[in-house]
Amino acid sequence: MHEDQLFPAEPQVRAVARELYRHAKNLPLISPHGHVDPAILADDRPFPDPARLIVVPDHYVTRMLASQGIPPHRLGVPSLDGTPSETDGRTIWRLLAANWHLFRGTPSRLWTESVLADVFGVVTPLRADTADAVYDALCERLEDPAFRPRALFERFNIEVLATTESPLSDLTAHAKLEADGWGGPGGRVITTFRPDDVVEFDWPGWAERIERLGVGTYREYVDKLRARRETFIAAGATSSDHGHLTAAAEALPVDEAAALFDRALRGASEPGDAERFRAHMLVEFARMSVEDGLVMQLHPGAVRNHNVALHRRHGRDVGGDIPSPTEYVRALKPLLDELGTDPRFRIVLYTLDETAFTRELAPLAGGYPAVFLGAPWWFLDTPDGLRRFREAVTDSAGFYNTAGFVDDTRAFCSIPVRHDVARRVDAGFLARLVTEHRLPLDEAAETIADLAYHLPKRVYQRTLHDGATTR
Amino acid sequence: MHEDQLFPAEPQVRAVARELYRHAKNLPLISPHGHVDPAILADDRPFPDPARLIVVPDHYVTRMLASQGIPPHRLGVPSLDGTPSETDGRTIWRLLAANWHLFRGTPSRLWTESVLADVFGVVTPLRADTADAVYDALCERLEDPAFRPRALFERFNIEVLATTESPLSDLTAHAKLEADGWGGPGGRVITTFRPDDVVEFDWPGWAERIERLGVGTYREYVDKLRARRETFIAAGATSSDHGHLTAAAEALPVDEAAALFDRALRGASEPGDAERFRAHMLVEFARMSVEDGLVMQLHPGAVRNHNVALHRRHGRDVGGDIPSPTEYVRALKPLLDELGTDPRFRIVLYTLDETAFTRELAPLAGGYPAVFLGAPWWFLDTPDGLRRFREAVTDSAGFYNTAGFVDDTRAFCSIPVRHDVARRVDAGFLARLVTEHRLPLDEAAETIADLAYHLPKRVYQRTLHDGATTR
Amino acid sequence: MHEDQLFPAEPQVRAVARELYRHAKNLPLISPHGHVDPAILADDRPFPDPARLIVVPDHYVTRMLASQGIPPHRLGVPSLDGTPSETDGRTIWRLLAANWHLFRGTPSRLWTESVLADVFGVVTPLRADTADAVYDALCERLEDPAFRPRALFERFNIEVLATTESPLSDLTAHAKLEADGWGGPGGRVITTFRPDDVVEFDWPGWAERIERLGVGTYREYVDKLRARRETFIAAGATSSDHGHLTAAAEALPVDEAAALFDRALRGASEPGDAERFRAHMLVEFARMSVEDGLVMQLHPGAVRNHNVALHRRHGRDVGGDIPSPTEYVRALKPLLDELGTDPRFRIVLYTLDETAFTRELAPLAGGYPAVFLGAPWWFLDTPDGLRRFREAVTDSAGFYNTAGFVDDTRAFCSIPVRHDVARRVDAGFLARLVTEHRLPLDEAAETIADLAYHLPKRVYQRTLHDGATTR
Repeated sequence: MHEDQLFPAEPQVRAVARELYRHAKNLPLISPHGHVDPAILADDRPFPDPARLIVVPDHYVTRMLASQGIPPHRLGVPSLDGTPSETDGRTIWRLLAANWHLFRGTPSRLWTESVLADVFGVVTPLRADTADAVYDALCERLEDPAFRPRALFERFNIEVLATTESPLSDLTAHAKLEADGWGGPGGRVITTFRPDDVVEFDWPGWAERIERLGVGTYREYVDKLRARRETFIAAGATSSDHGHLTAAAEALPVDEAAALFDRALRGASEPGDAERFRAHMLVEFARMSVEDGLVMQLHPGAVRNHNVALHRRHGRDVGGDIPSPTEYVRALKPLLDELGTDPRFRIVLYTLDETAFTRELAPLAGGYPAVFLGAPWWFLDTPDGLRRFREAVTDSAGFYNTAGFVDDTRAFCSIPVRHDVARRVDAGFLARLVTEHRLPLDEAAETIADLAYHLPKRVYQRTLHDGATTR
Repeated sequence: MHEDQLFPAEPQVRAVARELYRHAKNLPLISPHGHVDPAILADDRPFPDPARLIVVPDHYVTRMLASQGIPPHRLGVPSLDGTPSETDGRTIWRLLAANWHLFRGTPSRLWTESVLADVFGVVTPLRADTADAVYDALCERLEDPAFRPRALFERFNIEVLATTESPLSDLTAHAKLEADGWGGPGGRVITTFRPDDVVEFDWPGWAERIERLGVGTYREYVDKLRARRETFIAAGATSSDHGHLTAAAEALPVDEAAALFDRALRGASEPGDAERFRAHMLVEFARMSVEDGLVMQLHPGAVRNHNVALHRRHGRDVGGDIPSPTEYVRALKPLLDELGTDPRFRIVLYTLDETAFTRELAPLAGGYPAVFLGAPWWFLDTPDGLRRFREAVTDSAGFYNTAGFVDDTRAFCSIPVRHDVARRVDAGFLARLVTEHRLPLDEAAETIADLAYHLPKRVYQRTLHDGATTR
Repeated sequence: MHEDQLFPAEPQVRAVARELYRHAKNLPLISPHGHVDPAILADDRPFPDPARLIVVPDHYVTRMLASQGIPPHRLGVPSLDGTPSETDGRTIWRLLAANWHLFRGTPSRLWTESVLADVFGVVTPLRADTADAVYDALCERLEDPAFRPRALFERFNIEVLATTESPLSDLTAHAKLEADGWGGPGGRVITTFRPDDVVEFDWPGWAERIERLGVGTYREYVDKLRARRETFIAAGATSSDHGHLTAAAEALPVDEAAALFDRALRGASEPGDAERFRAHMLVEFARMSVEDGLVMQLHPGAVRNHNVALHRRHGRDVGGDIPSPTEYVRALKPLLDELGTDPRFRIVLYTLDETAFTRELAPLAGGYPAVFLGAPWWFLDTPDGLRRFREAVTDSAGFYNTAGFVDDTRAFCSIPVRHDVARRVDAGFLARLVTEHRLPLDEAAETIADLAYHLPKRVYQRTLHDGATTR
């Protein structure tokens, strides 16, 4: 990356941004939420070819190409319906290079260029006529032990990385990491408890998963989930994560929750059951948080598998989700009524709907002790999205009700650049406050270090939230 | 404040902003809507200690501290439930100072620093280790007669200040002000008619308040409110104010409105009655405006007392309200169908939902003679909120369908800085138009003076709106 | 226009913007959607007086004046109710000039000043005291054959201009244009198929229009519309246009659609029928697009004739429409399920609700091959609206899922300035990317030429969308 990348062009603001960035640049990375496969670090095997590293698993990349008529199977995305997928990495890579102009102005371009240049030292610009040269250079690096996952982890200066697992996971990879001195409570690689696949009645295979959980009644189910959380905590987890369609939260009487569960298990759910059960379980998990200390993360608002053709051919999580309008103020009220001012509870709220930032989320975070604001997420995790987030929420929530940057990525090699982008954008935002005489430089410098490192560490670990001062 | 505070950093834009600001800086303040207690000016007693002046009554301040685990009773906020509240001003002040970093980047910080420095001449930066020095310096000033309310009012260069009262108010303070030559029609301190507490069925004590109004039927109620408006007008009122949950307006047949009223009085309201009656009364008050000339202000969209724990302990108006999505185009249609093009009617629309600015509010104000746009309000009354307002509404509404800045504050000492912020932000916005060759400098200079002074004076007094040119 | 108009003030950014703009400035104008009366070009008669050219037909202008109490009939807008309308052009022009300050900061001001100066060479600033001089100068120009429509068309460097017609139109003007070598497929002036007036049951006169179509059953109706599309294609049409209240799309069984149609024809529609039929026909027209190749444009979200007083006196399309919140993700799903990945289908989505850009529209365009994003429209077609559009959509949709600028205007003389504004704003946006080291200058230069010329040509003509690379 150019040393001034993403800093505002105005020379005074840029100079201040540079100065502020120096205070954050080299701080260790805290990655409290993401989707890296822990086996990558547990096994520490070389990464596969460049296409399988950078194109195939990245739905940001494959969906953009799909939007211009290049179907995912031509990019190597595995199919469920028998459509043959491209297997030659070089062919896939050439398709990317020939269509690289489609990514102009997008975060994918910026991330990928940084991965090539800063992680792999490949600075040749990607174009149709350089595709092979770049591919070959990357292949060479990937054979070098210095580019294995654990070596990169050290080079990336990651202090802690949280992966995300289902309650059904046996956490094998985390056990191996712990055995190697890399995992467990306080370790470098920890897990996160994500129970959606055993909560959502209407996801295919729910009943089978409940069977795998080994429970038959609602009470057993709740007890089992409570026990799984303890196991996750033993594997280092400090938070749970919940990816619901809406932010609805509503505690049901136990009998009613049990009835919904039973109907679902019998395959006899009625319309609205899934939504009510999900809303109920959100409160139930919040109550567990009060007991076991896991910080709750809520990621609402994605309409999953919107693109049916894509879903039919390639399954979940391949770029077919679309955001939708999301309401928080009424939806979360039952949860906040019960636990919003409880010092034992903490919830980090995310959104795909930017309109909620000034209107709902910043006022909620600036009013309830339990509420923190998560970083801009998914479609919003971009230089301009990060800037708009600060512009939108700082008035009502300040900086200290936000929770620091979260990369939320599966793309291990893109972790450093994602954090670097957030630090640069915060430097630019704070530089504007400084040059507009709204914040002294020394306080801005302290703030950027807090945003980059101290805040996420504090928020996701529930230290110091004791009613005294927070610093 | 630094002389360039809030001006864009780019030197040419900043130079133009400085030049434009000179045209607005010293114009008298018009404060057509706010919540200053008129007794402060009627009695002209010294302000209490710094904590009671700056912390205790300011829900922007106490909610931010509460959001980080410092409960309001530790900040001296009176409780209803017997929880002992901190009474020592210095202790409260030290808590503020020790947590001052929480306010970085917020308008509260900017306002407070200006109050300390520009109103009280205390320029020591607020920190844990300066808390006592700042407190002592403020105490000293507060004993000086030059810092009594009326002296400050003159120093602040306020031309007119509107307070806000319930129809149940006997307007004693305003009578004293009038007797002293400070109040009455055209006076320096005037009132505003705010009938919410006798309109909202579901607010506790509604029936008792109706009894205090001395009415027993819907017709008596309407007649009484009409009469109270005349009394308010005699105390200087030029506008009414309505703080509804939504912007719904719908005229009911008299019989139906009367039936709702009767049911409520008997404690037999049905679901939806309160909402329908509120929507009906908005039209009814609009009709009264046509007769008596009060400008109607509508402030919709706050979910009141969202934070139940706070409400239970401390009551209303202590920081527990949260904005919510607000629709205007369909909600207001019945009112605009009846009165939107009536030259005798004027309504100023406010919002807590910024998304309505370009989509609904600017097009309404740029289309209906009766509609003006109120300044960014509450959570949006911030440097960036004010800037986004101009960027959002000017395209469709221009400058002359906006109503000028409204401070809407209880914090008397913060009035000058709030208006100054608005003038600075308008200077920055207009400077951009000038430097982008979209508006000549001389017209920008005329515009900023109109926004700062002439427009609010004209809009809230219903002069000149006669179908001829407006200047 | 000043040579730097609309470019960001910061000198480095401005220098890059200037450089980029040079790559777009002189490219021919592609106007794939608008509302110019084709008779203007078919007849090539001199324009009427300045008021009838610039004030009377422009609802942006008349609504702003109306919002400040100058009723449209005083501005020459014809009435339906017998109210006499001003007929003297000079009187109307003087009213505009005396109130010109109302347009400060609006796009109408910018467009009008460019029309006066750049099209007609009249550079006297418009003010009350210059009204007559400007009027006289314009009148003189209008008599000059060099200012006739076809001469201006050539001077404007328009390559293709699409007008918009009802299926009921006999396309006489287009026939004359074709006879003169100006029209027909691939010609300079083409038509667009806009069937709203035969789809919307609840528009007055629907049944009469169906009679004029010469059909009596739903099947005849669909066949007739299919045939009319062929006639439109023969007159050059490359797209259809649909201006619905919502984005709802839902295919009904033929029997059900036929039943709705029959009820409407009998005047026996039930509540919801119109909405369901409109949603159904959107899918039906999309299916026709697959067969005949017309690109579908969807313009949803305007509440038509919101201002009833205006509608009663002056009818449709005189400034009484207001935007409203618009949802796309769920509304369009049935259509996208059926055709969203079909390479034979293409839909260009517009909005009046900016909140949909990041949240819904950019993700849809960045995910579905069939979806492109239309330019900011109507209330959003402004310098700041165009800038916010790029800032909002580029992250998820890039540049190549957008469809280029669309002027959508009736005001023929304002076409060049509208396109020029878009090119300048894109230059400023791209210059920011360049100076923030997010895009190299050479790629930015290629991009601006694509946005200005190559993309709209490609998108509205369905060339090259074959699953291969798009460049």
